[in-house]
Amino acid sequence: MMPEAVLCQAQAEMIEWQNSGMSVMEMSHRGKQFAHIAAMLEADLRELMAIPANYKVLFLQGGATAQFSFIPQNLLNGKTKACYLNTGAWSEKAIKDAGAICEVLVSASAEETKFTTIPERARWVIDAQAAYLHYTSNETIHGVEFQSTPENTGLPLVVDMSSNILSREFNVSDFGLIYAGTQKNMGPAGVTVVIVRDDLVGHASNMTPAVFNYAEQAKNQSMLNTPATYNWYLVGLVLQWLKAQGGVAVIEQRNIAKAARLYQAIDNSTLYRNPVATTCRSRMNVPFILADESLDAAFLAAAEANGLAELKGHRSVGGMRASIYNAMPDEGVTALIAFMAEFERTH
Amino acid sequence: MMPEAVLCQAQAEMIEWQNSGMSVMEMSHRGKQFAHIAAMLEADLRELMAIPANYKVLFLQGGATAQFSFIPQNLLNGKTKACYLNTGAWSEKAIKDAGAICEVLVSASAEETKFTTIPERARWVIDAQAAYLHYTSNETIHGVEFQSTPENTGLPLVVDMSSNILSREFNVSDFGLIYAGTQKNMGPAGVTVVIVRDDLVGHASNMTPAVFNYAEQAKNQSMLNTPATYNWYLVGLVLQWLKAQGGVAVIEQRNIAKAARLYQAIDNSTLYRNPVATTCRSRMNVPFILADESLDAAFLAAAEANGLAELKGHRSVGGMRASIYNAMPDEGVTALIAFMAEFERTH
Repeated sequence: MMPEAVLCQAQAEMIEWQNSGMSVMEMSHRGKQFAHIAAMLEADLRELMAIPANYKVLFLQGGATAQFSFIPQNLLNGKTKACYLNTGAWSEKAIKDAGAICEVLVSASAEETKFTTIPERARWVIDAQAAYLHYTSNETIHGVEFQSTPENTGLPLVVDMSSNILSREFNVSDFGLIYAGTQKNMGPAGVTVVIVRDDLVGHASNMTPAVFNYAEQAKNQSMLNTPATYNWYLVGLVLQWLKAQGGVAVIEQRNIAKAARLYQAIDNSTLYRNPVATTCRSRMNVPFILADESLDAAFLAAAEANGLAELKGHRSVGGMRASIYNAMPDEGVTALIAFMAEFERTH
Repeated sequence: MMPEAVLCQAQAEMIEWQNSGMSVMEMSHRGKQFAHIAAMLEADLRELMAIPANYKVLFLQGGATAQFSFIPQNLLNGKTKACYLNTGAWSEKAIKDAGAICEVLVSASAEETKFTTIPERARWVIDAQAAYLHYTSNETIHGVEFQSTPENTGLPLVVDMSSNILSREFNVSDFGLIYAGTQKNMGPAGVTVVIVRDDLVGHASNMTPAVFNYAEQAKNQSMLNTPATYNWYLVGLVLQWLKAQGGVAVIEQRNIAKAARLYQAIDNSTLYRNPVATTCRSRMNVPFILADESLDAAFLAAAEANGLAELKGHRSVGGMRASIYNAMPDEGVTALIAFMAEFERTH
């Protein structure tokens, strides 16, 4: 979901951007108009996340999934091992792809609870010789979210923040590297943000393609080759919208309230159930199952007829899933809760 | 430059695509609406280029530049060497990046003519043990274009067609692999098309990230991870526009005429000069230098004041460059020629 104000602005500027005589997608990425758009994009992200000056901000292509491979290629720096937390489907993919590049130590896994918990910090096994510790701050499929940043791990912390970046406050200094696809809270798919501490840049293996080498891209303001210009522009519009809302602290309070109302409705019902431990429920993705799964199809059909789209759970877990990212207004959650109550009453 | 009709349609459909209740950029890439957009995109490209059934068509991210590394990673298949023709700046980049993956034999180079020629076929040195022969069908910076496809090389032919794909007819069966960034003749930046013959798929090295492994992406209809959905949609609109123009054969005739008029104007002037041999002048990119280069700045300023944007030559070669891709209408070339004549008259 995109903020409607962003879609309206993009629509108004589609044919011509600010008296430039052209659409953003027609601009040379080396021209002065696009340079302005790119500079605003980085400045706004730095402001919204309070990114310190000793971090590079890169805008790449390929999705967070490409980074599953390029993070070890860039960060190993002669080491042979990396630590990973396994808290769901996205962690598993990151672990699998890193495994083709280096030795992976799974420091902790929630597989035995079917990814409905986050393993206690005290039980994590961390190897001080590893290059970094990787985790996924929010698991979209399982609806599991870290409620705080892991502490005292002794390793550079690398986080896949694709699905909760800008939804809550993070202290960037806690991390060695933050990465995120843009398609959840930052705009349309097609841009991958990498925020990386200076000392971790410049050690890529020779095998790393130049466009995925953090040092090369940092030197070239992420324009080593033609970037996805129109996507950068759209992400920039979303960041401006977020600033206009009051920034991350304000949207976080709204997200807390939206999620609380939806979980309460689920917990108070007899038809719906969320399987995740209350200590690590996601504010972004709320999976729920129906007590009688033969009602699934009827639920989805009735939901769509009521204008509630994209509620089907991921094929790997089934059931339902409500994604309530930043752009989902309070009214969307209210409508969903009302629909769920009415469906429960009539079924 | 984008066809104006495409921008208008994208504008009209920005908020809601065809009664779907949402913008294309809000669609799940697994949903039925986007599945339709994706299927149309591939079908239209197959139709426009007459792509045989034994070729896969992939839509990736990262630009053609990323493929400079991933082509050898996917195609070497146990071999240790690849042949490359060096006909300009883009060839050079492809050669450099491949050199990090395998041994590169430069089969021929036009460096000694400062990339104003294409070396004679008879003088190419081809190693039959190489995995493939790579060339760049159009060099945007030097304005050099192959007027026919290399024949009887004995190796799978791999071509970077980024800047002349869909501008002229190609026989896809002549190639092992065709790749192209979309930002010249297919739409905005952010999608990379790879058209690859079946027998070349499935031999990627273990180091190849899954999202750049042709076999993995072919199995997943290029949706191993979230693709750049809105960019796919825009490329699809450009392909529909091209079909409405009459297809590649029709646009090729228009491109021939546009380029001929511009080269004639340059050749008939005393102020302007194109340095490229007439046998390999590009129909897409027409570089020209002013006899008095102290007039460059005045030329560019006057051009921009006359609504003629993006005429500055690439920083590596200087001078001017007119890019006259498919979307550039005849009137754009007419206006440029008139401006150039007037500038020459008054300077």
